[in-house]
Amino acid sequence: MGRMIGLLQVDPTVGDLTGNAQRLEHLSNLAAQHGARVGVTTELAISGYPPRDLLLQDEFIRLAQQTASSLKVPIPVLVGSPIEAQSSRQLPGNGVVRAGSNDILSSDGNSHVVARKQLLPTYDVFDEARYFQPDNRSGIARTIAQLDLGVTVCEDAWQAAGLTPSSYSADPIEHLAEWGRQGVQLDATVNLSASPYHADKLSSRIHVCRTAAQVLGHPFLLANQVGGNDDLLFDGNSLVAWPDGRVVVAPAWQEGVLVVDIDDASNCLWVASKSPDALCIGSDQIRHLSPEEKGHEYDKELLEDLTDAVVTGLSDYCRKSGISSIVLGLSGGIDSAVAACVAAAAVGPENVLGLAMPSRHSSQHSIDDAHITAEALGISFDTLAINSFHASVEDSIGDVLTNGHPVASENLQSRLRGLLVMAHANAQGRMAIATGNKSELAQGYCTLYGDMAGGYAPLGDLYKMQVYGIADVFNSRAEHNGRVAPVNQSTRTKPPSAELAPDQKDEDSLPPYDVLDEILRSHIEEGLDAQAIADKGFDRVTVVEVLTRLEQSEHKRWQMSPAPRVSSRAFGQGWRRPLASRHDWRH
Amino acid sequence: MGRMIGLLQVDPTVGDLTGNAQRLEHLSNLAAQHGARVGVTTELAISGYPPRDLLLQDEFIRLAQQTASSLKVPIPVLVGSPIEAQSSRQLPGNGVVRAGSNDILSSDGNSHVVARKQLLPTYDVFDEARYFQPDNRSGIARTIAQLDLGVTVCEDAWQAAGLTPSSYSADPIEHLAEWGRQGVQLDATVNLSASPYHADKLSSRIHVCRTAAQVLGHPFLLANQVGGNDDLLFDGNSLVAWPDGRVVVAPAWQEGVLVVDIDDASNCLWVASKSPDALCIGSDQIRHLSPEEKGHEYDKELLEDLTDAVVTGLSDYCRKSGISSIVLGLSGGIDSAVAACVAAAAVGPENVLGLAMPSRHSSQHSIDDAHITAEALGISFDTLAINSFHASVEDSIGDVLTNGHPVASENLQSRLRGLLVMAHANAQGRMAIATGNKSELAQGYCTLYGDMAGGYAPLGDLYKMQVYGIADVFNSRAEHNGRVAPVNQSTRTKPPSAELAPDQKDEDSLPPYDVLDEILRSHIEEGLDAQAIADKGFDRVTVVEVLTRLEQSEHKRWQMSPAPRVSSRAFGQGWRRPLASRHDWRH
Repeated sequence: MGRMIGLLQVDPTVGDLTGNAQRLEHLSNLAAQHGARVGVTTELAISGYPPRDLLLQDEFIRLAQQTASSLKVPIPVLVGSPIEAQSSRQLPGNGVVRAGSNDILSSDGNSHVVARKQLLPTYDVFDEARYFQPDNRSGIARTIAQLDLGVTVCEDAWQAAGLTPSSYSADPIEHLAEWGRQGVQLDATVNLSASPYHADKLSSRIHVCRTAAQVLGHPFLLANQVGGNDDLLFDGNSLVAWPDGRVVVAPAWQEGVLVVDIDDASNCLWVASKSPDALCIGSDQIRHLSPEEKGHEYDKELLEDLTDAVVTGLSDYCRKSGISSIVLGLSGGIDSAVAACVAAAAVGPENVLGLAMPSRHSSQHSIDDAHITAEALGISFDTLAINSFHASVEDSIGDVLTNGHPVASENLQSRLRGLLVMAHANAQGRMAIATGNKSELAQGYCTLYGDMAGGYAPLGDLYKMQVYGIADVFNSRAEHNGRVAPVNQSTRTKPPSAELAPDQKDEDSLPPYDVLDEILRSHIEEGLDAQAIADKGFDRVTVVEVLTRLEQSEHKRWQMSPAPRVSSRAFGQGWRRPLASRHDWRH
Repeated sequence: MGRMIGLLQVDPTVGDLTGNAQRLEHLSNLAAQHGARVGVTTELAISGYPPRDLLLQDEFIRLAQQTASSLKVPIPVLVGSPIEAQSSRQLPGNGVVRAGSNDILSSDGNSHVVARKQLLPTYDVFDEARYFQPDNRSGIARTIAQLDLGVTVCEDAWQAAGLTPSSYSADPIEHLAEWGRQGVQLDATVNLSASPYHADKLSSRIHVCRTAAQVLGHPFLLANQVGGNDDLLFDGNSLVAWPDGRVVVAPAWQEGVLVVDIDDASNCLWVASKSPDALCIGSDQIRHLSPEEKGHEYDKELLEDLTDAVVTGLSDYCRKSGISSIVLGLSGGIDSAVAACVAAAAVGPENVLGLAMPSRHSSQHSIDDAHITAEALGISFDTLAINSFHASVEDSIGDVLTNGHPVASENLQSRLRGLLVMAHANAQGRMAIATGNKSELAQGYCTLYGDMAGGYAPLGDLYKMQVYGIADVFNSRAEHNGRVAPVNQSTRTKPPSAELAPDQKDEDSLPPYDVLDEILRSHIEEGLDAQAIADKGFDRVTVVEVLTRLEQSEHKRWQMSPAPRVSSRAFGQGWRRPLASRHDWRH
């Protein structure tokens, strides 16, 4: 019998201790049934990641730790859990407790506690120094079910690969390697992770695991959270790397167990969760990579993955928030068509209502295109002209609109639509979704309380060209299943327009989207300033205009609903609550 | 000639390096003119606090440090500034550079750098571990203008007083005291602070300074930022404590210099800024406290201070964002009446427009009361009935409203008002303000995109009973100046009502506000759970209902506009982006 370890790729709900415990027990049973001697969960699996201000409640910490250590499991399981503080003037730990058998050697006073995280990321989406006390011991190893295992938690493994934005003073992988050089031989090292998704993040994670396996000279196993919590997405993709560079990767966007035979890469197995509400999107195949292979290599595969990511975000947000139906405005444009595709995939087309709300500036082809999308998807559809409301408001404050800034009248139409969408949401218990994309949000080319209204913005972290990209994925998936493509050719090819003024086109106000996207990506994700972006070959005036609008729209974006985080850097990387600029509150 | 130190109580704008430099030069000149040998600014005075994600830009750090160290000042000045990182894999420091003369002994390679902050708060509104590398030397002292000064930055002084939520492993005050015991005699220790306001925070700050002075055996001087940046308020109240417990406190809510004679408490002087746009609200008197006296002691004084705080928040937000005029809905209720008082005080009554927007459920007395408030304040006033829009929308989606949840129709009215307010804002270049208070926001008793619409929520961190409290302050101030009280008796005493359904009263849905406020305060500020609150004598069912609504309204509050932070704990202390609950997106 091989030395098998089960990596429990779980989709927890933040704060739902009971539900998360049930999921972990179910996965532990599956792992045991398929020969695993020991199970390893993801980071903070019992509380879900990121628990944030729940960690400020002592009672929550106590209950989480107790629940984790008393899981009913047939094999020993290392469970990611917050750990009670060691004194009233200290913070809790981000650690690992054991559930199941008692054969763990622990130097802790609390015999359940196996390890505490040493490196606490406090950058980008992470704010762990706010909540946790770091451990500072030199290497943590445990004997469990006759296996000698090094134990690390997420960031602990990233310093060795040099992939953190700044250096830590310690390196837990190097600590364990030093133990090895001193004669302490381990069978494997495990890592409990909650490593968020962004496009092609998997390549980085593979590099981290290969580096650790190479430095340690034994297999390195990483169990990663899967699913969405608020705006954070976790792709799963749990994996194992051997010192020679071979890698086995679990499926993304699925809950289940990767059973790893640490002696035989070919003997690894994916066991999907049998829970009726388990996340199960995309391919269920495990991947074997030779030492030379990276993760994703083709744009097409990245777009498929991005599509699954966006669907996962919305579907998990709805399930975890108790939302079963959705309403959205369907303008006939690309964004709302793709948002409708995402909604239909997330909660089922029978639970989605699309509203076409033409104004005096809407073209007939827009209404037709909206109708075609709704029909192809099989969602409910209704048409509500906003002309009469528009006229009724103009009767009352016509002089204010006529004598004021012309944007007032454009925003008015968008807000009338927002009001109708919200009336359906409120009356029918649906969640409204906002259909805007990252490129237009970054330029403030959107209306607060109008098209930004809604509980979730499924495309809010996708650049416009990525929206076109996943439109193609939805179309080819539909055609593959013998259905009509939901994003028709007219929607796909017409020039983008807000249709809030006569003959208005987005390109009257913004650069072409392929140019805009690259400028935005260079600034937001690469951190380049105007000069450096211009040096890439972009028109300098255009670049400055784009970056100025980006700054001016901060206040507006701050009021955006959650959007699935799919890029390596989102807006306002540091939680800055911006001052309004003149433009923010006017548009 | 006395040994005089000038504490520069500055009102910086986050990111405005040039403007902040000018303010610091102006205050340094005033300090020198009044006999100060050396000036001490507030923490990060050159960048303004909190700079947040600006600190992620290396170029910003470099420019800030360069601007700080090259200030044109007639005396040496210790300037709070970000300090460039010591390597590409390190974070910057939160430190102090010297401007002016060169007679500083510095052990640093960079001779401008005087000190780096040692304790980095990462709780509540603070997230400094995200941005800064802590210093870990044992005590920082400098000789400057023939004075031997200990140098500390904000949090550095709080560990000694035991007033941080968890312990740090170092104590910079104790380090300096240890130097003293070893024979290094200092004349005084200074502290560059950006310590945010909350009601009665001054008492804590006095305790910190008295503790430090006592431990050190010499005067302890704290220069504190003043004014608002985003939702953070800083009250100023710069102060000095002597080892015997005597204290001198500068005025709150005013920009200027506290010139301290460290040998003679009676020789301290307040010099107000002469800049035409300098913050200047409330009393300009300095206060002398004997060793037994605390800070504020009377409720009346706290309410006066709270009123000044709220006015400062809005006025600084407007000035720093380039906003010169405001529009708000005036319902005739207490909240909008008080919000109008705040707006009139912040930007001048001639720049404020109040809109009465009666619906079919509005009473005539509400319209009358709104008019009375507008007239007493001298703001512009208009009445726009929403009946016709309401009817026009009902014509179109009447069946949706009739067959759906009744809250849809209530929200519709609120959103129609929001739409009219925003149309005025957009057309006329005004900022809309939201008039809701903390108690109703905490219960979700408000409408997203309706009464929550606006760029700033001046009452958003005030409990309902505090709104009544500051109404009285505005009334007595008006009467003191021979004007009509803006919040008339009818507004002051009628039962609160949203007037969105026939004969609706807030108390039909919520507990009486005095009860609600105490339950909320117990949970949010004292961290008590339902049982502990019930044990105070509140009805258990009521408590559970209140806390449940508080949890359910998280998503809605997350989309709230900036509100001045005036309580010791705001909502969602840890930046948690909440999942929607069923109720959030319906209301």
